[in-house]
Amino acid sequence: MAPPTLDFYFDFSSPYGYLAAVQIGELAARHGRRVAWKPFLLGAVYKKIGGQPLVAQPLKGDYSVRDMQRSARELQVPLHFPPGFPFASVAACRAVYWRQAGDPTAAGDLVLAFYHRAFGEGGDISSAEGVLEVAERLGIERGELEAALQDASVKEKTRQEVEAALDRGVFGSPFIFADDEPFWGADRLPVLDRWLSRGGW
Amino acid sequence: MAPPTLDFYFDFSSPYGYLAAVQIGELAARHGRRVAWKPFLLGAVYKKIGGQPLVAQPLKGDYSVRDMQRSARELQVPLHFPPGFPFASVAACRAVYWRQAGDPTAAGDLVLAFYHRAFGEGGDISSAEGVLEVAERLGIERGELEAALQDASVKEKTRQEVEAALDRGVFGSPFIFADDEPFWGADRLPVLDRWLSRGGW
Repeated sequence: MAPPTLDFYFDFSSPYGYLAAVQIGELAARHGRRVAWKPFLLGAVYKKIGGQPLVAQPLKGDYSVRDMQRSARELQVPLHFPPGFPFASVAACRAVYWRQAGDPTAAGDLVLAFYHRAFGEGGDISSAEGVLEVAERLGIERGELEAALQDASVKEKTRQEVEAALDRGVFGSPFIFADDEPFWGADRLPVLDRWLSRGGW
Repeated sequence: MAPPTLDFYFDFSSPYGYLAAVQIGELAARHGRRVAWKPFLLGAVYKKIGGQPLVAQPLKGDYSVRDMQRSARELQVPLHFPPGFPFASVAACRAVYWRQAGDPTAAGDLVLAFYHRAFGEGGDISSAEGVLEVAERLGIERGELEAALQDASVKEKTRQEVEAALDRGVFGSPFIFADDEPFWGADRLPVLDRWLSRGGW
């Protein structure tokens, strides 16, 4: 039987998603779990229930940037904001769902490579070209992915996954389910860690 | 010289403010600091920059209630939501600023008693009567506080404190400054704790 998963929902344009993504693999492994990587689109959430990107909000935006930088320094991971941030992340989403080919625990390397390019280096992953460059470095055949990004079934799979995330109650990034228990925010990772250690409370 | 403070901003109607308030005294003492208790009104923030109470927001509201309950269980403190929650907290604010009489580190007992009544017991502290009952149990003379709640200078002091909180960038509850470093949310207490231990990073 496959080990249980941690279902890790995130938007590639989310700095807190990045800061959680670099930690979640080790956390999951410590509890005998695998990560199911579930990219989705915050824009779909805003469309459904309203809202706007964190960094665009008065006061909260400035604080959040400061908190993201402080969190990154403590984790000792680089944090740079890509040009055009917050950016459209649907191409990167599609690449991941295509690469997973039905196994949600696959393609973690691609997820982390996208995030590293976007927030570790401040590079572009909003364009198909940006996505293809990152994928090529992992040995993914460029022409194959280029075709996949335009493939109707890949687009449909991505649409369904985003819809399923919203149906499950996901409204922010990162958002993690341990079985049916929801955890929102990179700041909830220590709570999730204790939850898994104790089997809940 | 007085020891440095942790400036603890909170709305009495904020469950996360309650969950942080029961921890902040011990945290501050561990780092040789005193708590400056700074009640303010989230309503003034919403008026200034928009927004609405957390629990009224779609999806986020349901999640937040669950997260508050989970956080309270882990801390082993009672959590009950008072009738009419979220409630008007200006009377409790005024009582605190009156009781402090210019010393922001005073009246911690009153703050904790209000919070205990509201979220520990699910009782009313939105009315003058609710505020007076809590204060009486601490030995505060009822008639004196009753007059203070109507006193123009107490109202003005409260108005100024709320304005000063907004001017300092406070937009949520709890919101803590360690010197000039801001920390928003009960979930940032462990970060604040490490920040004070290390002298920042």
